[in-house]
Amino acid sequence: MYVILVYDMGEKRVSKMLKLCRRYLHWIQNSVFEGEITEVKLRELLEKAKALMRPAEDSVIVFSSREERWLDKQVIGREKNSLDNFL
Amino acid sequence: MYVILVYDMGEKRVSKMLKLCRRYLHWIQNSVFEGEITEVKLRELLEKAKALMRPAEDSVIVFSSREERWLDKQVIGREKNSLDNFL
Repeated sequence: MYVILVYDMGEKRVSKMLKLCRRYLHWIQNSVFEGEITEVKLRELLEKAKALMRPAEDSVIVFSSREERWLDKQVIGREKNSLDNFL
Repeated sequence: MYVILVYDMGEKRVSKMLKLCRRYLHWIQNSVFEGEITEVKLRELLEKAKALMRPAEDSVIVFSSREERWLDKQVIGREKNSLDNFL
């Protein structure tokens, strides 16, 4: 399935979350990732994310769609990570 | 249609963008908004966003889906703006 993941983490935990998400998804903006991922891999990612998070302070939101074609993407301004989009 | 909007703005322009997006969508996390919006209203929002942005530095990404039910949302950790979700 296709997911968009956004996180909001305390400063001390940001870099660990960034590294973790990069192993599963493509980074497209500050704290925003997207990509095709299986349900099993997503569950694995979220379990690892939970272990990094302080639930009262941090949050992760995952939007998922069974089909990528159900979602249109429009980028305005700088494409932070345009290379990654072609991988 | 249903959209997810994420922005990455230079510090000086963040608060203006936040205010602008709040007029059209629901704030759900740091620089992340979602909501039902018409194409006309989205175009209006993006025109106003462009006027605030420095294209070489800032970016706005909009994911859109014709139907909200095509997207699942999962929140882990703190629900930053849970009230807004019920509006």
